[in-house]
Amino acid sequence: MSRVIEIVEVTPRDGFQPIGPWIPTEVKVDFLRRLAATGLRRIEIGSFVSASAIPQLRDTAALVEAAAALPGLRPQVLVPTARRAEEAVAAGARFLVYVLSASEAHNQSNLRRSVAQSVEDYARMLDALPADMELRINLATAFDCPFDGRIAVEPVLALITRLAALRPDVEICLCDTTGRATPDHVAELFAAAMAAAPGVAAWAYHAHDTYGMGLATTHAAYREGIRIFDAAAGGLGGCPFAPGATGNVATEDVVWMFERMGIATGVALDALLPVARDAAALPGAAAGGRARAALLGCSA
Amino acid sequence: MSRVIEIVEVTPRDGFQPIGPWIPTEVKVDFLRRLAATGLRRIEIGSFVSASAIPQLRDTAALVEAAAALPGLRPQVLVPTARRAEEAVAAGARFLVYVLSASEAHNQSNLRRSVAQSVEDYARMLDALPADMELRINLATAFDCPFDGRIAVEPVLALITRLAALRPDVEICLCDTTGRATPDHVAELFAAAMAAAPGVAAWAYHAHDTYGMGLATTHAAYREGIRIFDAAAGGLGGCPFAPGATGNVATEDVVWMFERMGIATGVALDALLPVARDAAALPGAAAGGRARAALLGCSA
Repeated sequence: MSRVIEIVEVTPRDGFQPIGPWIPTEVKVDFLRRLAATGLRRIEIGSFVSASAIPQLRDTAALVEAAAALPGLRPQVLVPTARRAEEAVAAGARFLVYVLSASEAHNQSNLRRSVAQSVEDYARMLDALPADMELRINLATAFDCPFDGRIAVEPVLALITRLAALRPDVEICLCDTTGRATPDHVAELFAAAMAAAPGVAAWAYHAHDTYGMGLATTHAAYREGIRIFDAAAGGLGGCPFAPGATGNVATEDVVWMFERMGIATGVALDALLPVARDAAALPGAAAGGRARAALLGCSA
Repeated sequence: MSRVIEIVEVTPRDGFQPIGPWIPTEVKVDFLRRLAATGLRRIEIGSFVSASAIPQLRDTAALVEAAAALPGLRPQVLVPTARRAEEAVAAGARFLVYVLSASEAHNQSNLRRSVAQSVEDYARMLDALPADMELRINLATAFDCPFDGRIAVEPVLALITRLAALRPDVEICLCDTTGRATPDHVAELFAAAMAAAPGVAAWAYHAHDTYGMGLATTHAAYREGIRIFDAAAGGLGGCPFAPGATGNVATEDVVWMFERMGIATGVALDALLPVARDAAALPGAAAGGRARAALLGCSA
């Protein structure tokens, strides 16, 4: 299907990572297959991180292989360091998402290093990457930090400018890790970031719905010209290192809103709803979103 | 507290009306008292309707009396007909909300008459009303109807123009009864309505969060200049005559979003949260909203 906006489905990574009970690899692969069948083309299938820190994602290498067999899919994997990027490349990943935080406190908590060290490490990774590797930067806590609160716009712009100078032809995703970004804040930062780093290939927005603002901020980003949105089927999600952070904005809510506005997502909502329902029903999952229950009945 | 926006708390009416188990009048009065203590000044305390159609609201006359004893409160009651307006006035109501629908099918289902008959009845009510009575029109299904789907803008504008010609110094509230209005639709209709009926004293917006768009559309209305917003503590709500319509946007979510944006609501969120929690815990209530759980812990 043709699409005006591109949804990056993150339930296999952001959604699954806080779930305690082990989700067998074959169940994850089945989710990938079903998600891809809805028309979703970009799926964040996992991350190369410490298995002791996030045990649920320790089978990401197997998922890279499985996703490569799904036609039309453009799977991406999260990496927090240049070393993990090597692992990802060795496992066959073709699209890396390098994550770092705008706030020192969150970067230390999440990655055990300073923001400056992450930037240096990112530069090292760029030197070592195959030339045809697709690349995104996930800038966590770009708006708000669980430890430091609201993040000022200016230092975020300075960080973006530094990252973009290292390699402009990347996608940069500004992430509302805590779900506390307001629509006006999202609009302000995107407008300023696009002006400050005009050479960036693409911009994306990653919303959490912790306080109910997931669609409000997604729409605010859309109004600023953003066309790539992270979302999680079933409204799953949450950062193990961001206390109180709960679900990503639900993919089914995002699809519903944009399709109602006449903006094609390329995703078949009818096909997505049962997948979202099954993701929400996984043991240990904290589900979110509203459209699923409204469309499938209140028990969904 | 000073306020830039005014929230109309509708849990006592829209929130309680679909609840089956009887909420004793003294419990309702206690909610009014606690809601007023949060700084909320406008509360929709009930409606004068058929006790057989909506048995939960059959004690509205007693609530009018109780609300009059709460200092600073500006309570409003819903009336669907001129005859019910007489009842409300006799019971001591000082602020009436006359409800009719933009869609024929919903007006027939909800009020058992045509839209034209409702307009005629509204004109009759105006002739009989005391001169100092405050007045609002709730235009249900202004964006979307559970039976007819999306409502075109032009006939809604024609209806608003007709109503405003009868008496301009009223507040008109455009209601997204089904929760299916999108942010762009809300912005479009408000902009067009304000241009078509410039003499209207005030405009208000009533959001449902059925599909997760409650804050997105509330923010869209704010951007168009709307400063009066309906919301329901605990995210309760739903129209018994609008199949599938669930909760109003949660008051605590609305307060959270606007206060985060630096826009004063006059409502103390700390005081509101336990009231919202208790409303959400009422037997038979279908709760909604996100901020409550995020701020009080996931069990709230």
